[in-house]
Amino acid sequence: MFQAAEIDKIIGQCFAALTFKPFPEHLYDPLRYMISIGGKRIRPRLCLTAYNLFSDRMDKSILKPMMALEVFHCFTLIHDDIMDNSDRRRGQPTVHKKWNNNTAILSGDVMSIEAYTLLSEAPSEILPEVLRLFNDTASKVCEGQQLDMDFEKSSVVTLDEYLKMIGLKTAVLIACSGKMGALIAGAPRKVCDAIYDYGYAIGMAFQIMDDYLDTFGDPIIFGKNIGGDIVSNKKSWLLVYSMKNAASEKSARLQEILAMPVGSDGERAAKIAAMKELYVGLGVDSAALSEIEAYHRKAFAALKDSGLGPQQMERLKDYMESLFNRKR
Amino acid sequence: MFQAAEIDKIIGQCFAALTFKPFPEHLYDPLRYMISIGGKRIRPRLCLTAYNLFSDRMDKSILKPMMALEVFHCFTLIHDDIMDNSDRRRGQPTVHKKWNNNTAILSGDVMSIEAYTLLSEAPSEILPEVLRLFNDTASKVCEGQQLDMDFEKSSVVTLDEYLKMIGLKTAVLIACSGKMGALIAGAPRKVCDAIYDYGYAIGMAFQIMDDYLDTFGDPIIFGKNIGGDIVSNKKSWLLVYSMKNAASEKSARLQEILAMPVGSDGERAAKIAAMKELYVGLGVDSAALSEIEAYHRKAFAALKDSGLGPQQMERLKDYMESLFNRKR
Repeated sequence: MFQAAEIDKIIGQCFAALTFKPFPEHLYDPLRYMISIGGKRIRPRLCLTAYNLFSDRMDKSILKPMMALEVFHCFTLIHDDIMDNSDRRRGQPTVHKKWNNNTAILSGDVMSIEAYTLLSEAPSEILPEVLRLFNDTASKVCEGQQLDMDFEKSSVVTLDEYLKMIGLKTAVLIACSGKMGALIAGAPRKVCDAIYDYGYAIGMAFQIMDDYLDTFGDPIIFGKNIGGDIVSNKKSWLLVYSMKNAASEKSARLQEILAMPVGSDGERAAKIAAMKELYVGLGVDSAALSEIEAYHRKAFAALKDSGLGPQQMERLKDYMESLFNRKR
Repeated sequence: MFQAAEIDKIIGQCFAALTFKPFPEHLYDPLRYMISIGGKRIRPRLCLTAYNLFSDRMDKSILKPMMALEVFHCFTLIHDDIMDNSDRRRGQPTVHKKWNNNTAILSGDVMSIEAYTLLSEAPSEILPEVLRLFNDTASKVCEGQQLDMDFEKSSVVTLDEYLKMIGLKTAVLIACSGKMGALIAGAPRKVCDAIYDYGYAIGMAFQIMDDYLDTFGDPIIFGKNIGGDIVSNKKSWLLVYSMKNAASEKSARLQEILAMPVGSDGERAAKIAAMKELYVGLGVDSAALSEIEAYHRKAFAALKDSGLGPQQMERLKDYMESLFNRKR
């Protein structure tokens, strides 16, 4: 088995060597840009970690499908950023801001096809199953984005609805990443499914952590401005939980804060401060951390009785911890 | 072998039975809409015609990939219509007009994934090759759309550039449709490649015919307004040919017409009449018909020495003729 650092190094080399056609340059430049601005590569890391539990052979039949996961993820970011009208991504201008909407639409489209091109290098005997898993996942990611947009127009979103949405938008692709690695390595069916469930729980924890850090993270370490979700009244885990748990007078205060203007820097800062105070008063911050812990336990529980040995379990535990000892 | 009318009936039944998930309805309604507003289904027809040269077994391993071709085509139409800001498609409102841009982006995305889901039903032993062909084709379709958009900003487009663009945007998917049918039927490699070349030439002829009909078609039979390309100064085959062949004084007249305003119905009619007169004076209409004929000969020539029997050749000739005895 490779060390985690070795896996990271392989992933870095793969993306450094990933090329797209030179022409038409207006079409393919945004793909190069999206790969170059980085990201945590958490889907590739889980894919290779799961694969490496069963195989040390790092050839293109795993490395290309591994890249497909990240390339697909980048495609969804390009299109989501148009739909959400986001200006920045990973500290850089989004594709539709750097170029324009039409470029972002079409380059996104060809990036999703590039993902399928990479995926098609999976071993032919397992390709039908890998393709079915990927298609099923990809549809769900779109469904999650649709629910997320639908939520913007709903005055109330329940925790169940929220969890369903992040399950589709975020968790299934992480689950798919782990399962695909195991499938391509030829792991037994039961283990592949257990790794899917493990990845799903990690994905849920990851998204709730993301929501937590958007309000309670350290802006320098987190790498983006704190409070963006509060400013935009985003139905994050924190807000959805508050809507459910705020009793009458706190509930009125919550509505007041949601109605606060955000036209100036001062107004935005005041709104963020007010909402943070309300969250802390309601214990939302510690509730979020408890929820994340609960998903960690679920992730680990999914692996029990799957037939994985102690060393394999340890690797998956390490992956999980590396992901959550993050402040960004 | 089935009669052409039987093939059409099978295709009609397949699309009538094609369903998408009920929820989220905002996501999947546009897919149902795009399939319901019809189209000539020329890609499915070529796919099944080519398949049927070698096999009579019409099961899901061919019928689902056949539908993938049309579903993918519809996805590209949804996104192209946003990029081109088109209001109408097949006489109906386009998706981004009927809903909005975000819906058109995301529903288009999930429609492309639906295409891959249908494609994954190809027989597993041929799936890797079918997937490679489809990916290669899909990328090229995006490249063609990019070139088409780039042309809008170029003052001059050469005939070679124009032919390359329609080759990518239109011809490769028709070529892929024929080849995929033959591949799934287990036809010899040489025949599959010949049918690809035949389909490519037909696709070229089809697009030039489309350009011809946009100016010289019968508006009632053609099903859309005549002269749309002239009004928008679209770099159609007719305009590109004229730019190349108009000698000095006609060239000046061409630039005058291109500069004519299109603010009112009267102005649009005057511009269309002026350009048609110029085209006829330059013999552009008959040149277009000759070019279409030349591609027909190329299509048929591609089949020679491929090993197809006379009856099989006849079927492909019939397909070609059915496509061009159209006025719409």
